[in-house]
Amino acid sequence: MTAALDLLVSALGDLVDTDAASLDDARADQSGHAAPGRPIAVIHAETVEHVQTVMRIATETRTPVVVRGAGTGLAGAANGGEGEIVLSTRRMTAIREIRADDLLAVVEPGILNAELNDVLAAHGLWWAPDPASRAISTVGGNIATGAGGLLCAKYGVVRDAVLGVDLVLADGRLLHLGHRSVKGVTGLDLTSLVIGSEGTLGVVVGATLKLRRLVEGTTCTIAATFPDVRAAAAASAAVTASGIQPAIMELMDSASLAAVAALLQLPAPTPGSAQLTIQTDGPASVAEATTIATILAAHHGVPQVSHDREEGERLLAIRRAMHPAMSALGTTLIEDVSVPRSAMPAMFDEIARIEKAYSMTIPTVAHAGDGNLHPNFIFEGSEPPAQVWAAADELFRAAIALGGTLTGEHGIGTLKSRWLADELGDDQWELQRQITRVFDPLGILNPGKVFAVDA
Amino acid sequence: MTAALDLLVSALGDLVDTDAASLDDARADQSGHAAPGRPIAVIHAETVEHVQTVMRIATETRTPVVVRGAGTGLAGAANGGEGEIVLSTRRMTAIREIRADDLLAVVEPGILNAELNDVLAAHGLWWAPDPASRAISTVGGNIATGAGGLLCAKYGVVRDAVLGVDLVLADGRLLHLGHRSVKGVTGLDLTSLVIGSEGTLGVVVGATLKLRRLVEGTTCTIAATFPDVRAAAAASAAVTASGIQPAIMELMDSASLAAVAALLQLPAPTPGSAQLTIQTDGPASVAEATTIATILAAHHGVPQVSHDREEGERLLAIRRAMHPAMSALGTTLIEDVSVPRSAMPAMFDEIARIEKAYSMTIPTVAHAGDGNLHPNFIFEGSEPPAQVWAAADELFRAAIALGGTLTGEHGIGTLKSRWLADELGDDQWELQRQITRVFDPLGILNPGKVFAVDA
Repeated sequence: MTAALDLLVSALGDLVDTDAASLDDARADQSGHAAPGRPIAVIHAETVEHVQTVMRIATETRTPVVVRGAGTGLAGAANGGEGEIVLSTRRMTAIREIRADDLLAVVEPGILNAELNDVLAAHGLWWAPDPASRAISTVGGNIATGAGGLLCAKYGVVRDAVLGVDLVLADGRLLHLGHRSVKGVTGLDLTSLVIGSEGTLGVVVGATLKLRRLVEGTTCTIAATFPDVRAAAAASAAVTASGIQPAIMELMDSASLAAVAALLQLPAPTPGSAQLTIQTDGPASVAEATTIATILAAHHGVPQVSHDREEGERLLAIRRAMHPAMSALGTTLIEDVSVPRSAMPAMFDEIARIEKAYSMTIPTVAHAGDGNLHPNFIFEGSEPPAQVWAAADELFRAAIALGGTLTGEHGIGTLKSRWLADELGDDQWELQRQITRVFDPLGILNPGKVFAVDA
Repeated sequence: MTAALDLLVSALGDLVDTDAASLDDARADQSGHAAPGRPIAVIHAETVEHVQTVMRIATETRTPVVVRGAGTGLAGAANGGEGEIVLSTRRMTAIREIRADDLLAVVEPGILNAELNDVLAAHGLWWAPDPASRAISTVGGNIATGAGGLLCAKYGVVRDAVLGVDLVLADGRLLHLGHRSVKGVTGLDLTSLVIGSEGTLGVVVGATLKLRRLVEGTTCTIAATFPDVRAAAAASAAVTASGIQPAIMELMDSASLAAVAALLQLPAPTPGSAQLTIQTDGPASVAEATTIATILAAHHGVPQVSHDREEGERLLAIRRAMHPAMSALGTTLIEDVSVPRSAMPAMFDEIARIEKAYSMTIPTVAHAGDGNLHPNFIFEGSEPPAQVWAAADELFRAAIALGGTLTGEHGIGTLKSRWLADELGDDQWELQRQITRVFDPLGILNPGKVFAVDA
């Protein structure tokens, strides 16, 4: 451990941060979960060469490396602990290139999503991935987790919006994966393999992003209340079935609405009621909003339509206040199951069953347009109690049984590694682990994460 | 060899085809290139279990296996030769499931693209990948090559339209990769890795496809002639720069137009002239067509706009007659470079330079909306002469130098394996080859293709 630190300091000087507060910060992410022990150091890489230097020293000294962006993850994947080097790419924020004609940008991984989109907007462009954390999360973190967000049903996930990545391997070699053209099938698609690999394959030091032009026309917002969550889920399924593709379709259950109302000091919602907040955009947005309002009304909803972007943002603010509202109640384990859209009402039934079985309230919001649910478990202290994990275990099994998945957009990290083989099967789990060994033969990249054996 | 054949016949009986004509058919694809020697047998698998049986026997006897669909490939990847088993999935044509509410279908690999879309259309749905070969190519072949087509700039490539694949490994084990939900980040994205892997990782025996609803509204077609190919390329770049996203934007150079005119007995085009054929669809299609016509006219084009779908198909028929027109001239090597859209005029300059340097005509069509060019080399006999490969070599190097790629949608197969490391670099080439070994430790899946060492 000292050998690695000495080599790092000698090679990188001030970029090596051993301040106690920095080390403690690097132990935890927004999941609240913290790695055991303190990492050796946090390295604030500013260039690709810095990253390569760190990886060469790590390989030479067989020291584990945890790559970290802004630390906003929700699965513990970027938490550094005892004996580990935390390699931060947060200072690598350059936009190297913006090409409106080719609809692409080449960026460094540490830039925040919102910062990038502010710059792109001046060119009439945007990068579609829109995680709820966009103001505080990095592009590199989005790529590492394969993040989603609110707009995915209409505008895709991160994997649909990345053409190539520059990757530093465990031994410090730099690879350029992917391409700059719209099409490209030369060899295996390692770009897609790296997206969502949570720091187990290499360090993303650059990315060629596929951009869109800003959407013109009116953005319409429809907010509708429903007598209960199942009615709201059925109404959202009816919107999907109508063939209209909203840009955003967010569902909040009664416990979520009550918590947000308390936080924002709004009138208390009708007990048991649920809400859908829907946005349409593009050339047909106004007509689509009208049709959607009719559908919602026919499904026991009371819709309110706004054609004003600022009023729309006010309506969406209730949804965006979900995380602070949960934090106000206690420590939160934000779950992230995803099911086929048609299974959403059934998934809400399963959540209700688990709430009853465990005598707990599980406030849940959902990206209803794509079937991604975020049930929230609230508890005291820093680690979820066994009871919470038991309920979460039932949640995961229910999602998988409904044709869904453990994690729609947050990743496996440390918090879900013990369920990974349940979804993949043992054969695929082992095959995936062997693939990580091709990239990282010594097993120094994020050991104990994702493919942890004794999780 | 005899041992493998005996085991296959004993296990699979009539499904084992050793008819001389079948064996000869399986040696070649639409590239015209044929594998040396005859394969041991063609196995007409009808079930997943048949595929597993073949792979178990192949592993036991260390016999190479070439997976094959309809044999419409253009890079030789599915050609079976001396000592190899050809495993055909062409008879596996079932549609197991169509879900309009979840916008997905589960299909077997042997179904033709057009057949699938005919069935989906009755449900108001379609699978967007639209290779020019759609009437004769299979879904499994599309997945194996990561195929593209005419609609990619607006509606994506195969990788954007597949949620999961069922894969039989070299040893006969069956894995279920991917998911049914819109989002899913559980573990590494092996689905994307398999797409475009050209038979080197396993046998695709099923696929969960991401569907779209049929696009409503008028489909408009704009055909425009230009004084030369560079003007047409610049006009197509101007359309892209305008922010309008056509569904289709096809470019034909003068040699292509002349060949098609000869085939279809149309009046000879003005010497040197080039053509763009553009389609718009969706709610704004008519307004977009009008704007596009104005842009083309401002860029030396003479546009003709049709709002009639059948008339549009007649205008596109000229483009669709390209391959038969080339075949009428001789044996054709259809190349497939792809460059960033802004580099298309420069790529046409490179083609003109290569034509002059080698004293040959290289008729070229392009998917101008996405920068994918198909230069055609015409020759006599069955194998391209050295002169053609020398010119193609310059073509590939020019595309890579312009930020492009060797192959936009046809794949590497046998015909481009000697250039693979030029694009990937030696380190990435070796890493990719090692990944194939994780799936196929004995190296029995499509040996000599893609990663051929002595190509």
